[in-house]
Amino acid sequence: MTAHPRLSLNQATSKYASLEDALEVTASAGIASIGLWREPVAEVGLDRAVDLVAASGLRVSSLCRGGFFTMPEGAARRSAIDDNRRAIEEAAALGAPTLVLVAGGLPQGSRDLAGARERVRDAIGELAEDAGRSGVSLAIEALHPMYVSDRAVISTLGQALDIASQFEPSRVGVVVDTFHVFWDPELLATIARAGAHITSYQVCDWATPLESDVLLSRHQPGDGVIDFQSITRAVLDAGYRGDIEVEIFNQRIWDAPAAETVAETARAFDATIGPLLDS
Amino acid sequence: MTAHPRLSLNQATSKYASLEDALEVTASAGIASIGLWREPVAEVGLDRAVDLVAASGLRVSSLCRGGFFTMPEGAARRSAIDDNRRAIEEAAALGAPTLVLVAGGLPQGSRDLAGARERVRDAIGELAEDAGRSGVSLAIEALHPMYVSDRAVISTLGQALDIASQFEPSRVGVVVDTFHVFWDPELLATIARAGAHITSYQVCDWATPLESDVLLSRHQPGDGVIDFQSITRAVLDAGYRGDIEVEIFNQRIWDAPAAETVAETARAFDATIGPLLDS
Repeated sequence: MTAHPRLSLNQATSKYASLEDALEVTASAGIASIGLWREPVAEVGLDRAVDLVAASGLRVSSLCRGGFFTMPEGAARRSAIDDNRRAIEEAAALGAPTLVLVAGGLPQGSRDLAGARERVRDAIGELAEDAGRSGVSLAIEALHPMYVSDRAVISTLGQALDIASQFEPSRVGVVVDTFHVFWDPELLATIARAGAHITSYQVCDWATPLESDVLLSRHQPGDGVIDFQSITRAVLDAGYRGDIEVEIFNQRIWDAPAAETVAETARAFDATIGPLLDS
Repeated sequence: MTAHPRLSLNQATSKYASLEDALEVTASAGIASIGLWREPVAEVGLDRAVDLVAASGLRVSSLCRGGFFTMPEGAARRSAIDDNRRAIEEAAALGAPTLVLVAGGLPQGSRDLAGARERVRDAIGELAEDAGRSGVSLAIEALHPMYVSDRAVISTLGQALDIASQFEPSRVGVVVDTFHVFWDPELLATIARAGAHITSYQVCDWATPLESDVLLSRHQPGDGVIDFQSITRAVLDAGYRGDIEVEIFNQRIWDAPAAETVAETARAFDATIGPLLDS
């Protein structure tokens, strides 16, 4: 069994599988790459995770995730920055070229979006050198504006790029995640502007009605309304040559056996994204 | 009892009240202005509605709503355009300076956001002259990007303004609705750019978790995380001098007696928006 050579399974798509199981079902499905999450890595310990990844023969396309550093200066902020430094080291050890950053929401009781956004930029400024030294690029992920207050104050690709472009792409880049950015009337122009700063491309689809937990409203490519053709062409034209992750949070997909989810992901990718890459 | 002289109760906030009841509780609460909806007007008929409004002594700040014209050319589109022409006439008869437009979502089975957005611009181009002749300005409302696929393909104030600025403000303007646009990193700059094209300002608050029906996640000003100070100042600095509507879709608020909802709205407005207007 083989899948498209640029497909990477983001581990969140088979959320309930252990690291060992996720690596095994991914490799068995003929997928060559995986995007890892810190929690399942921590469950087995970093050294064992590194060994398991090596034994699997898979590439690691990214590590999810750092970030969550919108709080003002103080102990909590120092702790968040330190945790991000550890995440950079973990990404380097696992051979992940990229650490995905989710900014974090408004601090409790705050209405100061502009201030929170400033503090995201400042945190990345603190971390960029560590990232560069470790050979890991920080990838700022814009999240859909429905998550702005409680998860990520970075709401558009343009906003992520305005920060990333202050740094070399080898230190700071951006994630293009179709679910989060497809609605943006400036999207294609911003992708073109991003160029080499695109260090991660994640695909999944958008369909309504949204789930009651809006975090879990992501679908297999092709099962919703996103025009993957225009977005994928723009990402390719911008020069992106890396793995393309399918990252889905969806209770129904999580409840299915991991091997089934992985096979379905490879099929959806082949039908929706694959032909755009090979033409 | 008096409320702030620039407060207008959008009728959707007391959704289950008839037109007659909504006018009565609004006037009794000392509120001087109301934003009407077409459905409750149609229930009593336009002529009777005009009489009721005149007898109430209230100003009408806007009529909600026209729009829903993203479909391609054909009978359904012609019917939508005709319906918008009737809405313009209704707004004029009711003395509403503004008809609020909600663009509509992607046509069934379509993934072509750019095409749907083009068709919104074209529809407004068809209607602008009728609007000007009737003394009613069309107010394009950007809806939060979580509604992009099923309700409104106009997702940012900048996008609304890019259309509106092709016309005189007396024909086409934009709505600034805090709930829909507060997340936008370009918001304050876009409000400044909008100037006289701001023909409606609507306020309500954002809080998470969102309701399972995300349409109903709107709250009284002050009950969420929106910074009304910076947004309201920007709207005032842009030159907006009209009524300010509180428009809330929220099942708990709808289930309360209308008089209670209206009193609570006046109190929330006085606490949150009023001081910014009088300073």
